[in-house]
Parts: sequence; C-alpha cells; structure tokens
Amino acid sequence: MPYVTPLRDFRFALKDLAGLDEILRLPGFEEVTPDLVDAILDENARFAEQAIAPLNVAGDTQAPQWNDGQVTTTPGFKQGFADYAASGWQGLQHPAQWGGQGLPKLVAAAPCENLQAANLAFSLCPMLTDGVIEALLTVGSEAQRQTYVPNLIAGKWTGTMNLTEPQAGSDLAQVATRAVPQTDGSYRLTGQKIFITYGDHDLAENIIHLVLARMPDAPAGVKGISLFIVPKFLINQDGSLGPRNDVWCASLEHKLGIHGSPTAVLLYGSGKGDAGEGAVGYLVGEPNRGLEYMFIMMNAARFGVGQQGIGVSERAYQHALAYARERVQGRAIEGSAGPVAIVHHPDVQRMLLTMRGLTEAARAVSFVAAAAHDKGTHHPDAGVRARNRAFYEYLVPIVKGFSTESAVEVASLGVQVHGGMGFIEETGAAQYYRDARILPIYEGTTAIQANDLVSRKTLRDGGATAYACIAAMKDTLQTLHTAAARAEPDDRAGLNLLRDNLDLAIQGYDAAVTFILEQAQSNVRAVYAGSVPYLMLAGIVHGGWQMARAALVCQRQLTEGTTDPFYRSKLSTALFYGAQILPRALALSAAVRAGGVANRCGAQSDIA
Amino acid sequence: MPYVTPLRDFRFALKDLAGLDEILRLPGFEEVTPDLVDAILDENARFAEQAIAPLNVAGDTQAPQWNDGQVTTTPGFKQGFADYAASGWQGLQHPAQWGGQGLPKLVAAAPCENLQAANLAFSLCPMLTDGVIEALLTVGSEAQRQTYVPNLIAGKWTGTMNLTEPQAGSDLAQVATRAVPQTDGSYRLTGQKIFITYGDHDLAENIIHLVLARMPDAPAGVKGISLFIVPKFLINQDGSLGPRNDVWCASLEHKLGIHGSPTAVLLYGSGKGDAGEGAVGYLVGEPNRGLEYMFIMMNAARFGVGQQGIGVSERAYQHALAYARERVQGRAIEGSAGPVAIVHHPDVQRMLLTMRGLTEAARAVSFVAAAAHDKGTHHPDAGVRARNRAFYEYLVPIVKGFSTESAVEVASLGVQVHGGMGFIEETGAAQYYRDARILPIYEGTTAIQANDLVSRKTLRDGGATAYACIAAMKDTLQTLHTAAARAEPDDRAGLNLLRDNLDLAIQGYDAAVTFILEQAQSNVRAVYAGSVPYLMLAGIVHGGWQMARAALVCQRQLTEGTTDPFYRSKLSTALFYGAQILPRALALSAAVRAGGVANRCGAQSDIA
Repeated sequence: MPYVTPLRDFRFALKDLAGLDEILRLPGFEEVTPDLVDAILDENARFAEQAIAPLNVAGDTQAPQWNDGQVTTTPGFKQGFADYAASGWQGLQHPAQWGGQGLPKLVAAAPCENLQAANLAFSLCPMLTDGVIEALLTVGSEAQRQTYVPNLIAGKWTGTMNLTEPQAGSDLAQVATRAVPQTDGSYRLTGQKIFITYGDHDLAENIIHLVLARMPDAPAGVKGISLFIVPKFLINQDGSLGPRNDVWCASLEHKLGIHGSPTAVLLYGSGKGDAGEGAVGYLVGEPNRGLEYMFIMMNAARFGVGQQGIGVSERAYQHALAYARERVQGRAIEGSAGPVAIVHHPDVQRMLLTMRGLTEAARAVSFVAAAAHDKGTHHPDAGVRARNRAFYEYLVPIVKGFSTESAVEVASLGVQVHGGMGFIEETGAAQYYRDARILPIYEGTTAIQANDLVSRKTLRDGGATAYACIAAMKDTLQTLHTAAARAEPDDRAGLNLLRDNLDLAIQGYDAAVTFILEQAQSNVRAVYAGSVPYLMLAGIVHGGWQMARAALVCQRQLTEGTTDPFYRSKLSTALFYGAQILPRALALSAAVRAGGVANRCGAQSDIA
Repeated sequence: MPYVTPLRDFRFALKDLAGLDEILRLPGFEEVTPDLVDAILDENARFAEQAIAPLNVAGDTQAPQWNDGQVTTTPGFKQGFADYAASGWQGLQHPAQWGGQGLPKLVAAAPCENLQAANLAFSLCPMLTDGVIEALLTVGSEAQRQTYVPNLIAGKWTGTMNLTEPQAGSDLAQVATRAVPQTDGSYRLTGQKIFITYGDHDLAENIIHLVLARMPDAPAGVKGISLFIVPKFLINQDGSLGPRNDVWCASLEHKLGIHGSPTAVLLYGSGKGDAGEGAVGYLVGEPNRGLEYMFIMMNAARFGVGQQGIGVSERAYQHALAYARERVQGRAIEGSAGPVAIVHHPDVQRMLLTMRGLTEAARAVSFVAAAAHDKGTHHPDAGVRARNRAFYEYLVPIVKGFSTESAVEVASLGVQVHGGMGFIEETGAAQYYRDARILPIYEGTTAIQANDLVSRKTLRDGGATAYACIAAMKDTLQTLHTAAARAEPDDRAGLNLLRDNLDLAIQGYDAAVTFILEQAQSNVRAVYAGSVPYLMLAGIVHGGWQMARAALVCQRQLTEGTTDPFYRSKLSTALFYGAQILPRALALSAAVRAGGVANRCGAQSDIA
C-alpha cells in the first residue's frame, strides 16, 4: 500500500499551530524562507514515498543476515541509504559549517517524521547518526568533530549508541565495559554491548560507535562512566580508513518487529582484527561524565522516537483507511439497498478517527515542542529562551512516551479495522503492530520517561512549567467559549463538548500536578505509582489543547467561507478528539490521585 | 517458562463469586460433588501443565506444514491431542448419554480457560469441536447425533465451523457456497471457505465440517443460508470411514500469531477425491435456517474465545511476573543499598497489578456468566431460569469483547514489563502479544459483539437486564460502605475508594444505558458510534462489581483472622482495580454519551 506524505497536515501544524513564521524570523534562521520550507517538504515527500517507503515490507520479510561477523542488510537498503546521503537529508538540522543545512528543529521535524513513517526500520540508522553528530558537536574536541562530523553528515559513515549490557538495561549504573588508558592517549575497550541498533551493516564504509565504559580507577555507579568513540575502522592521519578495530558483531537478535533494522550484540576486545587486542577508543569530553553526555544524544533520540510513534501511526492509519474504503461488507446501520464499504459503519469510523485523532494530536504536540526548542536556543530574549527551553524539556518525555504508547494503540486498531485480514501477515497491518511495540521501550521505557517528567520536569521547578501550560490552556478554553457561541448549531454542539471536556481534562491535569507536588516529600511511592498515568494524562491534555487550537483555526476559516475541504475534515477530527478521546483524562487523573492506595496494593499483594 | 494453573483463584471465583455450591444443588447435577470438582481441577491442572503447556512455544516456532493438500501439525501436537482425547477432556460439558461428563458450564469453565492458557493454538481445535457437538445435539437429527457426536466427544474426530468466504467476513448475507440437492437426500457443495481453523490436520482420523451454504432456490441474504455437515471422509453404514470427500485444504495462512493452529483455505467441489465431484454434505435441521443454527455454535464459541482472552492474559501475567522477580535493575525509589528486582519499582507493580486485575476481573465475570447459564438451563423455577438466561445472554458479548480487548492490553503490558528483552522473540512475551491479537477479531469482532450487546441484549428488553444488573450492583455498594466502616484504617481507605469509584462507574453505566435507550429511535448512528465504548464500559463495571464482591469476601476473612495469604493478596488486587482501573468507566461513559457528536464527526470527516 503506497505511503502518502500527510503534507497538508504537516503544513497546518507547522504554520497554524507551531508558529513557523515566528521561528523563521528568529536570528540565525534568516536564510530559511517559507518557500525553502515548502520546497524541502515537497522534495522530502517525493523522496520518502518513492525511494524509502517501498522498502518497508522488504525490511520486514528479508531481515539483515549475519555471516561471520559481517551484516548484510535487506536488499534495497544500501541504495536507499546512498540516495539518502546523496540528497543531504542527514544534514537537515546540523550546522552549515559542518556540511549541514542548519534548519530549525521545527522545519526538520516534518521530514524526520515522514522518513520514519515511510520505513521505521530503515530510518533508525539516520536517527542514531543524528544523535552521534549532536553529541560530538556538543562535547567532542575540535579534532574529533573535524574527523567524524563531516563524514557522518555526508552519510559516508553512520553512528551508534552503545549503552545496554546484559546486566545493564535501564540501570546504567551497572555498566561494566572496561576502558584501559594507553600511552598514546587512546583507550582499549573490553566488554559486551547488546541491543545495538545498526551495530553492524553494509550501508556505509565505517561505523562510529559511541560507547559507555568504565576506566580502571572510576567510581562505582553512574558517576564512573565515561564516553568513548570507537570506530569500526580506525582513521588514518590523512582521514582514510585504517586497520579494522577490535569491535565485532557476535550475532543479531530475532525480534518481534523492525526486522529491517539489525540489532547487534557487539563484542569489544576479542583479539581479532588488525589493530591489536581491545577495541581502540577515544575519550569524549572529561572522564566519568559519560552518562551526562549520553543524555545529549538521548534527548534528541527520545524526541526522534516519539516521532517514530507518530510516523508509524500515520502509516497504520493510511493502511486501515484504504482498506475500509475498499472493503464492502454489511448494510448501513440505517438500512441500505446493498452492502456498503465498511468505512460507513459507525465503529469503523470510531476506530479510524481515534487513530487519526491520536496521530494528529501527537504530531501537533511534537511540532509545538520543536518550535519551543528553536525559541529556546535562538530567541534574542533570555527570558523567552528560558521559558521555551523549560517547555521543550517538559514536552520531550511526553512526545516520547505518549506518542509511542499511542502508536501501539493505533497500530492495534489498524489491525482491528482489517478484521480477519489484519491477522494475515501479507496484509501488512500486522507489521505496524509488531514494529510499534519497541517504541515505548527503547531510548528509555515509558516508565523512565514518566520518572523524568515527574522528577526533573515537574518537581524540580515546583510545578512552574506545568502550571504555566495549564494557564495557557485556560486561555484557549476562553477562546473556545466565544467561538462556540458564534458557530453554526451543528458545530456549536461539538465545540461546546470539546470545551467542556477540555475544561474537565485541564482540571484533572491540574489536580494531578498538585497531588504530585504535595505528596513528593511524604509519599514518594504514591507519586511514582501514578507516574505513567500522569505522563499519559499530560499527553491527552496537551494533545487536546492543540486539537482545540486547531478547531479554532478551522472554525475561523469556515466562518470566512473557505473552500478548502481540509478545514472541515480537521475540525471533525478535533471535535472527535474532544468527544471521545479527551475524556480519558478523567480516568488518568483519578489513577494518578489514587497513587497512595495503588502503592499499598503493590506492597500488600504477593507480587514482590 | 512453566505455566502454573491459577488453582487458588479458580476455586475462589467458583465458590465465593459464582456460587458453585448453589449450582451443584441444581437438578441434574446431583452427581457432581464438590470433591469431584476438586479432583477435576487438580487433574486438569496436571494435564495442562505437563502435557499441553510445554507445546506452546513449539506451536509458535514450528507451524503446521501444508504439503499437497495434507496438513502436518507441530511436532508433539498429535500426542497432546491423543492424551487430551484419552483423558476425556472433550466430553467435559457434554451429556453423559453421548459419552460426556455432563458437568455444569461453571465446572467446565476453569478447565477450559486453563487449556487455553496452556496453549492457545492447540486448544482451538477442542474449542471448535465443542461448538460442533453443541450444534448437532441441539439441531441435528437423531441419526446425525448417533453418527457424529460420540466420535467427536471421544476425540476420534474433530469439528470445524465454515462461515467465512473471501467476500463474506462479518457479513454472512454474502455467503455464496452452493449446495445442490441429490436424489439420495444428500447435497453436493461447491465453493471456497477461508480462515477455517484446523480445517485440515493430522490430529484425528476424520474432520467434521459444519458449512454454511446456499441451496439453488434459496432466498437472497441471510435468510437463504442452510447448514450442512461435510465430513472429510464419508462414513460407511457400519460407522467406518468411507471415501475421501471432495473438500480440500488449498493452503494455510501466514499469520501474526497462533502459529500452531492451522488456518485453512478449504475448497469444496474441486473434483478430486473418490466420492465424485462436489463435496457430499448433509442438511442440518431445516433449510434456510443455517445462520440461526450457526449462532448456537457461535454463542458457545464466543464464550470460549472470551476464555481464551483470560487464559492468554493469565499466561502473559505469569511470564511477566517471573521476569520482574528475577531481573535486578535500578535502586528502590526510596533508595536502597544496591539494585533491586524490578518488581519493587512502582510502575512495574502498576503494570503487573493492571494485568492481574484485568485478568481476574474478566475471569470472575466469565464464571458468574457460566453459573447464570447453568441456572438458566437447570433451575426448577421458570422465572429464575428466564432471568438467568437473560443475564447470561447479556454477559456473553461482554465476556467475549471485554476479555479479548483486555488480553491485547495485558499481553502488551507483559512485553513492556520485560523491557528490551520483551521485544526479543526467544523471551516468549512477544508470542502472547501476537497470539492475543486475533481474539478481538474472530468469532465476531468487538464491534459485532457490541452491536449484539446494544441491539439484542439492551434495546430488545428495554434495558431491563442492564438495569437489573445496576440494581444488584447498588446492593454491593451498600455492603461495601458498611464493610469499609469496619475495616482497619489502611484497608478502609482502599475500600472507600473502591466504593466511590464503583459508585461513579455505576452512575456512568446507568447514564450510558439510558442514553442508548433514549437515542435508539431518533439517532441510531449516535448509539452505534458508542457501542464499543459501551461494551468496554460494561466490562469494566461488571469486572469492578465482581472485584468489589471479592474484596468483601477477603475483608471478612481477614477480619476473622484468616492465615491464608491469598485473601490479603486478592484484596490488594481488588483495591487496585478500584483505584486504577475502575475510573476508566468515566471516560467510556462520556464517550458513549458523546455519540451524537462523534457520529457527526464521522460523517463530516473525509474518511468515508
């Protein structure tokens, strides 16, 4: 089923919700004109649809092969990556001085999501490379940047993140890979890393691993972890590839989904290769600050994984919609002469609009977050920068956690829309259901995101950012009230329901934030017993807020007599979100506030 | 990971929630003593754990093979089925006069769920055979019963249901398989059936297909469908196997899950075999009443699929719990000397208790439904029979729809508890996630169940059964109030929250029923736009009601000084359900009542 870039919704979310015009006026983005943005979106759509999306099924059915330490990727991926590199997509959001295009995060957001939608397994490789580039630009030495960044941006080389070990998953304090200093200033690394995405492959001539490891004299725990660059092939003085380093892919995992993405077990220091025993590595930044540096990558990658959730949701929605329009089955509920396409059945519409509502709400939140990132880094006013930085940081765990949990739901609904055909692999709906399942896990599980949201993003500033969001949401409530009064009767009912449900949702959100702040000292377990419900609540409400803002734009356009059918359709999605999805906030807020009881149940049950 | 029968919860739900003693006193069940029930449960546990559960992974990884029309099942399945047949499990709930054991549905419920938990793919074959037996006993002729039923009960033969055709999935009006009468009173069938579970295999010497087909002069639509028996091998006068009938397995489907269960495309009348062209079939009951008859099988099978949902949930829960107890990762939230097992982390407890709460609530509802079935068929008082029959019929779509939708959620949480390991197929958690996904689809999708719940089970009696449930629930509320007042302070808070949340949930349920009754005439689309939320709401509230009843039993036992740790643990699960799961009713009720807006959104969006 051919994938079609949701260009219209991209443009709407960029311009009408995330304030693209304002971002393009920020100092440093003067050369990024609206026309350039349009051209990028169009070109990206063409590229994703024609070069990358057609490889999605092949990735699933013809997984990469491991043979004696070498990984051969799915047929077509090599050409796809070559095209990707040649077209300059890897440099989208990286500085021009390093060969990138220096675009705002907001402008890069749509193409990034779109590539993930086109082919999740493929796009993981560029996504991780982005993280390596960002980490090196932030904490690498000048020489390290010179050596690695231009080649990574050019797509000549790719990057990986090496955190996990068999005994150290979410708990990086347990990292045991050793890095022993050498007389030449380099290190020799020994250890085993698992779950390394694109840990080996044949898409590029070299692979730059960023690896967490421990020096011999390092303190125990997370404060003794340092970050190292370990290239697959060492780099000669002239920049050409040197000896094969002692890092080896021992095997690939047999996974539920994203089959096209090779997930490697990497062995450091098994004595093979021609660079001697122990993988040669180079310290990045200062010793023992590796975890802090890795978080630079992680934050970018978390936002990126959230976009993966939105992308796979979009893809699953398009697949289900096409099937529902084509599959004729059953009479209309009011009676019909003959069978009708199932898209006319009320519950199929409920499923499709739930899929679309969750997808478009998550997209809007992610674009708004990207805009906050740009204002947080480029706005001339320090106060505005600080507020936007806080807002962005608050939204990152929501973009990651909510968009990916939603993706699992959306992909599952996509299977359901297909009925029995959805369970047959050849139909394609099952692939999204399998692929999506990794998203709430990697780059920090939803619980890790929720802990981040509670501790660093809510408690640390005493709820200031969360309450600021709530205040802004209340302004939208007021505007909705006015708009509903002016609307046609049919729309008025929907707008009033959206307003009422958003009001209740905001109250529930407010109560949850207050509960967390009040209980954090006296009953920390009660707070964390509801941390994931809090994250999901925040996602539902922030999504509802953006859908409400969308409804206001559409309502205005309709009142002004627009002939663009997009606005009617978008308004319907927003009102559906208000009617059927926003009420989840009631349940989630109650779950957060029941943390004390829930925690006691955990302690008194026999599970522990 | 070895499967362990949840015997303690089975016994609790049977005795303390579903009223086993009362069922055993019903006329016709005099010979079923409590000791016999205990012995059956113990023997079933041994059998499921030792003979069937160990085949679960093999079914997934070594799917049945098709070769020239013959299907060879997973290694071990043949012996498993032989053991199953020899131990008499197929006859559990069928009459003694036909070789069965004539147990109440309630007593059969636990072993049936347990087999599904042990091995979903394997147990589908017996489940469908049960349906064929029930249909033949209800509408087959005496000769047909004599010929088929004893062999089916003995496990010598197995049965299938043949409804779906490529153009006729949920919409059976479109069935096109033709049945042409022959001079000897038999019929010759020609057509193609798809998605036929165990449509061919090597577990038994013969397969009895029940097939929906159309006679030449039949009216169009569902009123022209008749039901036929089509044996794979014809039966000679002496009962021995005769010529190979003209029904052939053309291929097996490549599915997302339940790989161990062969899903066949069956061709009727391709001219092969040695019984001439066209599959020989025998009319069951009267012409053109096939759909009605098939519903006899469907209702039993729908209850059975609901039990599959509970079984796979139990299995996924056990798998996740074992991992969480063993996996050491991260410090305790209050601080700890070293890393702790992840089962101590609040969000892991939330996930595990959500899994357990949904599973045990769904189990309790299914057992209570089975007891209602028994009272509906065996109680001496006609009024009691009628009320219980209505209650059972009301619960069947809930048991099917809610337990299976929950199973998808529970299996997904099971993957999440495992973190990255959950995504690796060898871990085993992913199998449940894949297997569970068929359950809300086959034997009628959740939307089909919801339509049944709205139309035949709620509207037809003017809401009488639904309101009767609500009245009974309110009695439990009152008892909860009294019990909470007497409880220890810690339990009091939990019981009060359970009471308050159950109260709100019942109000939401009541409002939803009222909305459906009020809108059914004027705005049928508004009602069906919320039919699945209504089904899920009913599931959450009925589950909450049973958990509340469980809490009352536990609270009494604890007050009386029980030393059985089960009661403390069960109380915790019930209170957790009250605190974190019951509030979903608020969101679902709001979604039902927003049907008018949701429906308009469906009409005004561009999806149709």
